[in-house]
Amino acid sequence: MPGKNNTPSKKSARKKGAMAAPDTTIATLGPAKIPSTMPFSRFVDEDPNVDIHVREELDLDQDESLRLYFEKAGPRKHTYFDPSKTKCAIVTCGGLCPGINDVIRAIVMEAHHNYKVAATLGIRFGLEGFMPEYGHNVWEMTPSEVSDIHLFGGTVLGSSRGHQPPEDIVDALERMNLSVVFFIGGDGTMKACQKVQEECLARNLKISIIGIPKTIDNDINFVFQSFGFDTAVDAATQSVQCAHTEATGAYNGVGMVKLMGRESGFIAAQTTLAQREVNFVLVPEAPLELYGPMGFIPALAKRVQQRHHAVIVVAEGAGQELCKANGQTDASGNPVLGDICTILRDEMKKYFKEQNIPLTMKFIDPSYIIRSVPANANDRVYCGFLGQHAVHAAMAGKTGMVISKMRGHYIHLPLSLVTSKRRKLEINSDYWRAVLDTTGQQAYYE
Amino acid sequence: MPGKNNTPSKKSARKKGAMAAPDTTIATLGPAKIPSTMPFSRFVDEDPNVDIHVREELDLDQDESLRLYFEKAGPRKHTYFDPSKTKCAIVTCGGLCPGINDVIRAIVMEAHHNYKVAATLGIRFGLEGFMPEYGHNVWEMTPSEVSDIHLFGGTVLGSSRGHQPPEDIVDALERMNLSVVFFIGGDGTMKACQKVQEECLARNLKISIIGIPKTIDNDINFVFQSFGFDTAVDAATQSVQCAHTEATGAYNGVGMVKLMGRESGFIAAQTTLAQREVNFVLVPEAPLELYGPMGFIPALAKRVQQRHHAVIVVAEGAGQELCKANGQTDASGNPVLGDICTILRDEMKKYFKEQNIPLTMKFIDPSYIIRSVPANANDRVYCGFLGQHAVHAAMAGKTGMVISKMRGHYIHLPLSLVTSKRRKLEINSDYWRAVLDTTGQQAYYE
Amino acid sequence: MPGKNNTPSKKSARKKGAMAAPDTTIATLGPAKIPSTMPFSRFVDEDPNVDIHVREELDLDQDESLRLYFEKAGPRKHTYFDPSKTKCAIVTCGGLCPGINDVIRAIVMEAHHNYKVAATLGIRFGLEGFMPEYGHNVWEMTPSEVSDIHLFGGTVLGSSRGHQPPEDIVDALERMNLSVVFFIGGDGTMKACQKVQEECLARNLKISIIGIPKTIDNDINFVFQSFGFDTAVDAATQSVQCAHTEATGAYNGVGMVKLMGRESGFIAAQTTLAQREVNFVLVPEAPLELYGPMGFIPALAKRVQQRHHAVIVVAEGAGQELCKANGQTDASGNPVLGDICTILRDEMKKYFKEQNIPLTMKFIDPSYIIRSVPANANDRVYCGFLGQHAVHAAMAGKTGMVISKMRGHYIHLPLSLVTSKRRKLEINSDYWRAVLDTTGQQAYYE
Amino acid sequence: MPGKNNTPSKKSARKKGAMAAPDTTIATLGPAKIPSTMPFSRFVDEDPNVDIHVREELDLDQDESLRLYFEKAGPRKHTYFDPSKTKCAIVTCGGLCPGINDVIRAIVMEAHHNYKVAATLGIRFGLEGFMPEYGHNVWEMTPSEVSDIHLFGGTVLGSSRGHQPPEDIVDALERMNLSVVFFIGGDGTMKACQKVQEECLARNLKISIIGIPKTIDNDINFVFQSFGFDTAVDAATQSVQCAHTEATGAYNGVGMVKLMGRESGFIAAQTTLAQREVNFVLVPEAPLELYGPMGFIPALAKRVQQRHHAVIVVAEGAGQELCKANGQTDASGNPVLGDICTILRDEMKKYFKEQNIPLTMKFIDPSYIIRSVPANANDRVYCGFLGQHAVHAAMAGKTGMVISKMRGHYIHLPLSLVTSKRRKLEINSDYWRAVLDTTGQQAYYE
Repeated sequence: MPGKNNTPSKKSARKKGAMAAPDTTIATLGPAKIPSTMPFSRFVDEDPNVDIHVREELDLDQDESLRLYFEKAGPRKHTYFDPSKTKCAIVTCGGLCPGINDVIRAIVMEAHHNYKVAATLGIRFGLEGFMPEYGHNVWEMTPSEVSDIHLFGGTVLGSSRGHQPPEDIVDALERMNLSVVFFIGGDGTMKACQKVQEECLARNLKISIIGIPKTIDNDINFVFQSFGFDTAVDAATQSVQCAHTEATGAYNGVGMVKLMGRESGFIAAQTTLAQREVNFVLVPEAPLELYGPMGFIPALAKRVQQRHHAVIVVAEGAGQELCKANGQTDASGNPVLGDICTILRDEMKKYFKEQNIPLTMKFIDPSYIIRSVPANANDRVYCGFLGQHAVHAAMAGKTGMVISKMRGHYIHLPLSLVTSKRRKLEINSDYWRAVLDTTGQQAYYE
Repeated sequence: MPGKNNTPSKKSARKKGAMAAPDTTIATLGPAKIPSTMPFSRFVDEDPNVDIHVREELDLDQDESLRLYFEKAGPRKHTYFDPSKTKCAIVTCGGLCPGINDVIRAIVMEAHHNYKVAATLGIRFGLEGFMPEYGHNVWEMTPSEVSDIHLFGGTVLGSSRGHQPPEDIVDALERMNLSVVFFIGGDGTMKACQKVQEECLARNLKISIIGIPKTIDNDINFVFQSFGFDTAVDAATQSVQCAHTEATGAYNGVGMVKLMGRESGFIAAQTTLAQREVNFVLVPEAPLELYGPMGFIPALAKRVQQRHHAVIVVAEGAGQELCKANGQTDASGNPVLGDICTILRDEMKKYFKEQNIPLTMKFIDPSYIIRSVPANANDRVYCGFLGQHAVHAAMAGKTGMVISKMRGHYIHLPLSLVTSKRRKLEINSDYWRAVLDTTGQQAYYE
Repeated sequence: MPGKNNTPSKKSARKKGAMAAPDTTIATLGPAKIPSTMPFSRFVDEDPNVDIHVREELDLDQDESLRLYFEKAGPRKHTYFDPSKTKCAIVTCGGLCPGINDVIRAIVMEAHHNYKVAATLGIRFGLEGFMPEYGHNVWEMTPSEVSDIHLFGGTVLGSSRGHQPPEDIVDALERMNLSVVFFIGGDGTMKACQKVQEECLARNLKISIIGIPKTIDNDINFVFQSFGFDTAVDAATQSVQCAHTEATGAYNGVGMVKLMGRESGFIAAQTTLAQREVNFVLVPEAPLELYGPMGFIPALAKRVQQRHHAVIVVAEGAGQELCKANGQTDASGNPVLGDICTILRDEMKKYFKEQNIPLTMKFIDPSYIIRSVPANANDRVYCGFLGQHAVHAAMAGKTGMVISKMRGHYIHLPLSLVTSKRRKLEINSDYWRAVLDTTGQQAYYE
Repeated sequence: MPGKNNTPSKKSARKKGAMAAPDTTIATLGPAKIPSTMPFSRFVDEDPNVDIHVREELDLDQDESLRLYFEKAGPRKHTYFDPSKTKCAIVTCGGLCPGINDVIRAIVMEAHHNYKVAATLGIRFGLEGFMPEYGHNVWEMTPSEVSDIHLFGGTVLGSSRGHQPPEDIVDALERMNLSVVFFIGGDGTMKACQKVQEECLARNLKISIIGIPKTIDNDINFVFQSFGFDTAVDAATQSVQCAHTEATGAYNGVGMVKLMGRESGFIAAQTTLAQREVNFVLVPEAPLELYGPMGFIPALAKRVQQRHHAVIVVAEGAGQELCKANGQTDASGNPVLGDICTILRDEMKKYFKEQNIPLTMKFIDPSYIIRSVPANANDRVYCGFLGQHAVHAAMAGKTGMVISKMRGHYIHLPLSLVTSKRRKLEINSDYWRAVLDTTGQQAYYE
């Protein structure tokens, strides 16, 4: 039985406060009895398991791990829903991310061509689309209408950030007579998704609720690489190249690039490894001091005086301890971040002036340019699988889950695991070490 | 004799205040007597003329023109300088622009391979490089060192904005024993260039001073398209596409893109024609009102209510009349522009809130990403010709001039013409009309 | 009156066999009397003229020219057709070229948004689409359907190469009750277009026949740059960069790139100027010898022995005198070209082996990759104007003409001028000289 | 001890003929005793193990696996070589592949900046560079010389295909007084590498021989994704997009794209998943029949008659059973492949003609354009790690091994494992099933 027989870790002593072995069981709406009509398919056995060692996700120590069993993704020999009577819906929430249209396309294509479902409805502009008062139309999506959408960035459905009461959403699902709903969205959306599933359960509604986690920050727990991340890094490297061009184009030129990463610096770190011109990378996970022996500003000054140019990559959530928290949150419920880049700019200018060091500073904020491009080949393949496996899972009657790829396997993950915490860069790791080796920034600290 | 026999315009009545027919004569250091050793070349006759009708440059009326004679660019049968004793220098000033490295490369290649000059020196970091107190080294550039530089954006020589006294610059030219100096830079640099040439003349120094005007804004008088402009538009269209993706990804989504254009809106206009998703384009040449019958904010609101998304392109110098001038100037002597985009954002938010219209606003400022990319194929070809013709002109003993391409011909232009005024978009033209037809923005004004 | 008052050239002696001053008058269907309802427009005067000096087009000598008067393109104050009763059609013929979809889009948008015509029909798969026996449906194109097509290469209408009898085509125009037909196609299509217009005239049909010449080879008479050319060069430079990478990646590496150019080498020449790694460029206009003092093969061998790598760009029509003509023609009626690249490869291998020179040869034929990409920004702007001006001309009742851009002006050209001959690279020109200076290939000939 | 304690697989019955559990022990030159001077580094323990389940590599059944232990890659606390006396060399062999320059750069940077080795020599033009008779100079590579090379495709060292006797190579290593040699190359090179290491052992030479397997085909055993593969797929999708544009641009248009893949169809399969316009994909692992119930030609005809366009992707090694083997091998010792695409084209034309089905066929062979582009961000990160870990391993005195990434871990692999067989697409897998689902090609077979 999945999620129950977790084998003990090689070393028994667990990190204090480490997460206990979680339940990996996937909820189902009922037994899948209808023989699948999928053409040509190579079915996976009913609910086979994949065993994977996890460590980071459970806050275990570096040399510890737990082996968990996960349900393998893929088409089942029997489905729970009768395709000819199944209406699906897709909704996209939160900020843009490369690959959303690829996931939408894959869902529509799989549902129509392989399962021949009755209809796939596109809900417009996020959760608002479920609320009658907004007056957004529903789009009945056909394969021909979506066949080219993967060539465009963004989401053809539109998105929004606002939250809506789970009860109202479930009312809408009932009204629309939906069997399956795919929620593409970030952390807040996954939490909403969970509540919607619970509400369905409470009402005894046979509606499959499937989440497809979307975050350009790559900070989803139990998801090693979120869709769109690879494309975002590709795009970010171009901005860093521009920053380098600007920096070397001036005496004591400094190019500063702000990249996405509210709570985790994955994009900043990976971009640094990909574009080896970065001299300092600042991420939320690593504490930031402006002055003193470990101070960033004098370290930068040292670098600039030695080499006369520098490139800095700053994840937007870096150094939040230096910003005055204003306690505001955005429409998605995320705290409004302090503007660390302006602080850095001001302090740099002040310090360099005091020290009488010339400085030419160029600031690049490519945010929307990175997140709104179409997916690259790697992400397209990935998004295709995510969409297809989401349909397989839903048709088999799974609910309250997401698709993830772990250690090369596509698996089913309970929503609870995904929302339990955010994934972060481990500062005490070979990977982060490699990032620091690339920048060489530590040589400039005292 | 060039510049003397200007024929009268077809219609004699000239616009009041229109510029008189200017002198197009190019100054020379002396007779070119040394037979050219250029291999294989097809020489142009000594100082042949090209006749071109000009109108806009002289502020003439729409249906008027003057035919001016210009010296044709190209290699001469005789040179003024003896290549084996000729030392050239190149200096790059001001902000980055695609194609600078292409021009540098073309100069070095032409000077070395075809004229076999003694040396070509790269002056580092703009005019600062001439001043001993900055301590910048001089780089003796070889063909092999520059053979790949066109694949990079920016300037391999580095740049700076500061001005230096012409006397000090000429002192440096004497010290370095230079015969030719190529100044690649903007309006301010062209004016400095002129003063340097006058100082050389005053000291009776036989130094050829050649300008290669660089402005991503495309606002150089008598130069129909400045190098890097085409590449900049290519790059800008990508930002506009991202803005469109963001705008359509939200209900009442508005994407605003700030593009270069301090005093003229060429990039904004051309990008609009290239990327037909733009709904409003604001340029310095067209007066901007925020409210009232011709007010931009209510017009935008009307558009958003009708179509639920909009893309706005703003040239950075648009609506300066609405910004409080602070009287500051930057290191190049250009006035610091008011921040029109922040004003627009604030007013939009206020107005939409008052009118109870939902609004999702995304602002993109791609500036450094546009100007620091490598040149596209079209600009590469153009920069190659500019660099080669600059060397031809210098070796023939021309001075105080720039290379321009007019009506398909490469010609010599006196520096005085180039610096006499800035080129601007003509609002009363077919071109601007086409831009407005593309946006359809006038339909939303009352 | 246009085309009649051509002023004499400055020098009277004309090249033997040079074309006489041609008639530039544009045919009209009748007087344009219906006041235009175009919103906001800045109308051009009725049939104003632009005077342009032409030389090459008429085979005049280098220092000679004729001033011809051409009708200026643009919206007229009065139209010939009543938009509410006007049905237009668009057909695309021959091979692909970047920008076709941009032209289609511009026509549909202009016709619908600015003139509000009754309908614009898309004829599928070229002239076949007019013939009932092929059974291709007609597509009534709406603005929303074409709003994104410029992001794709190729033609959304489909194309074909076959010819159809003009009478049958005109029968179809009558059956469909068309007022205007836009033919987008190559040389053969323009000739077909002319015959269709003559047949309409013979039948006294009031149908405006407008051609939009399409040729990636850039070989249209009186058209200085055909749409798609700039994009094609952009794409071609990437292939040349790859050839350079391959050539330098091996000892005595030779990269050979075949580019489009059946009878004229414009793409090959411009690509060479844009991508300065080319060492030999072979075009149809320059005779090609394999051996002897001017022989290409020994010249290449000399280069390879000196530098150990070389890049060759070959226009597909180069050296046809060396290929055995087989007398075949393709479906468009163009002669099937001999395969010069295979001859070159075989001779290279033979000669290098005889001379005991190691050789690593890489051949790149990017043809379809170049012609099927979407248009770049520059071509998009251009295609937009071509499409809009075509609609303006048609609505004003012009017929038997094409739109061209000469010396910065959009003008009307009679079809007869366009089809009278093919434009070719002038080998005896500054431009070609610059190409040869770039390659330096002449240094290797004896 | 690594490679010894392999735990038994869950199921004991092993596939007949399946490979026995191989030895994963890495050879060493001797004990590493010199304290590492690497700055700031986070060392891995001496020879820690990573345990990974393998299946495919050992020809085990689908539900079977063996857990093998591999040495973890990374910097050791002690090195075998004294950096100040260590001379390294790098050689690149065989065809181009995106990322070679990234690997070279990473090795040089790591060796110089972190270990401060005495010198890193670049061997020119593959193994030829070791042989005095070719007269290729050796390049002593400095960090500044290689700092930008990752922006270029190909290999800055040059490559060649020829094989050289291991004894002669080892003679050269002795003459040059090398301590470490990095061989970047394909299957043949890895085999040569092994022989060189054996010869070093036989001569008791303390030279570390490290392989970095390079194959764009992604067919290296125990290497799940070879460097350059991701970039190649990115590039290949563009060609497929062009083929789709060509196919839809004609009635019954067929675009055929030939992709790399001599013995395995990974690029073809992954490109198909990334670019969902592919209708048929042919790979070496799946048998190909031209006619009959499972015949490709009639299946294509069926598709074309239904949809009027089709895109075919052909791995170059597909259908070799249909080509007459000519028994020839190339300089690398690989058999010369039969030209399956020409056979397909001829048969298509013949069959369509016989069946009286119109056909417009476009063939695209993008080979050199794909393999000579610079690496994308993903591959750059990967190549950086490969190069760095290769240096770590060499300095620790490891030899006869390669770096691989398995299940997210960088590990050391004995050369023997890598060369034991080629990795192939498993036709009986979820992955290949997904590829076929994407194309839908099986619907057209009888």
